[in-house]
Amino acid sequence: MKLYDSAISGNSYKCRLILYQLQIPYERIAVDILRGESRTPEFLRMNPNGRTPLLEYEPGRFLAESDAILWFLSEGSPLQPDGRLGRAEALQWMFFEQYSHEPNIATARFWIQHFELDEAKRKALIGKTRLGYAALGVMEQHLAREPFFVGGRYSIADIALYAYTHVAGEGGFDLAGYPAVTAWLDRVRAQPRHIPITHP
Amino acid sequence: MKLYDSAISGNSYKCRLILYQLQIPYERIAVDILRGESRTPEFLRMNPNGRTPLLEYEPGRFLAESDAILWFLSEGSPLQPDGRLGRAEALQWMFFEQYSHEPNIATARFWIQHFELDEAKRKALIGKTRLGYAALGVMEQHLAREPFFVGGRYSIADIALYAYTHVAGEGGFDLAGYPAVTAWLDRVRAQPRHIPITHP
Repeated sequence: MKLYDSAISGNSYKCRLILYQLQIPYERIAVDILRGESRTPEFLRMNPNGRTPLLEYEPGRFLAESDAILWFLSEGSPLQPDGRLGRAEALQWMFFEQYSHEPNIATARFWIQHFELDEAKRKALIGKTRLGYAALGVMEQHLAREPFFVGGRYSIADIALYAYTHVAGEGGFDLAGYPAVTAWLDRVRAQPRHIPITHP
Repeated sequence: MKLYDSAISGNSYKCRLILYQLQIPYERIAVDILRGESRTPEFLRMNPNGRTPLLEYEPGRFLAESDAILWFLSEGSPLQPDGRLGRAEALQWMFFEQYSHEPNIATARFWIQHFELDEAKRKALIGKTRLGYAALGVMEQHLAREPFFVGGRYSIADIALYAYTHVAGEGGFDLAGYPAVTAWLDRVRAQPRHIPITHP
């Protein structure tokens, strides 16, 4: 397998982390999204939506969307929750991640780390900060009662939400008011074969 | 089952459509999101993220996120694609829908239909229009080669993408340049037990 991968992207990190935890060998192909390498004609032939990560699961066959890649790689492994309800709850949290969490927390981090903020972005950042804290609040409420997101054990739902939560500080978010989230970050970090986002 | 449902929401319509197509009896409970009924303390106890649709699949047990609800309801039915790759491709399109399509096309529609646009929203609408057309372009490219999104047949991926594409005009989008999308809308409409978004 090949993973077309951005080193700065939490979405790409989700895939590197699960590939490492499931001990699946793969080739990592760096895509510099800041230089537009995910929008070249060559890349758009592989993923018309022009985004990383992208998994080439067999030569010339591609799967996009980080959380769909997590699903694909985890089938038949302990990282995919069991049962009809477990699978649906994992997906509930993964759609929450892509809709209510990532567009606010990841985008705030991306802007702050990689752009000069103009007036429009500065204003938009206020809204994203408010919505990002709201998403953290939803997580806090759940994690105050549960050790992980689904079924009491570590799964792809935790990987999906860990990716940008653990670097939320780089987007200006202060996790001090979220003790259950902070304790969960530690539990995720303590999993076997955990690797940091900077792992080569 | 009970569905907490917004009549104007395409996300809620996805659930009404699949429940009807799979002939699953349910009680529809109207939630007026324009009057803040999805943000009341009572509603937040059922869904801390404060959004519709919400499925009460047994008394006091809730599942949120429209595409997770589609997954849950379609398990074991012909509407959920078969095979590891089919499942992953369905999820790829459903995450595409929630990340690249809905926040642009559905939000443009919601703003235009239900708000007086101030200067900030008018500016943001320009970006959403550009990104919404980009999402339609990705769909057009796929549908020029394939009759449906996954495996050559109608599935939950089509339901997810149909919900807001067929009302994109209400968000100011002109589908005239997207003949493959338009033909696919007709194929979805021609499925057995199809109901329109206005179906009571």
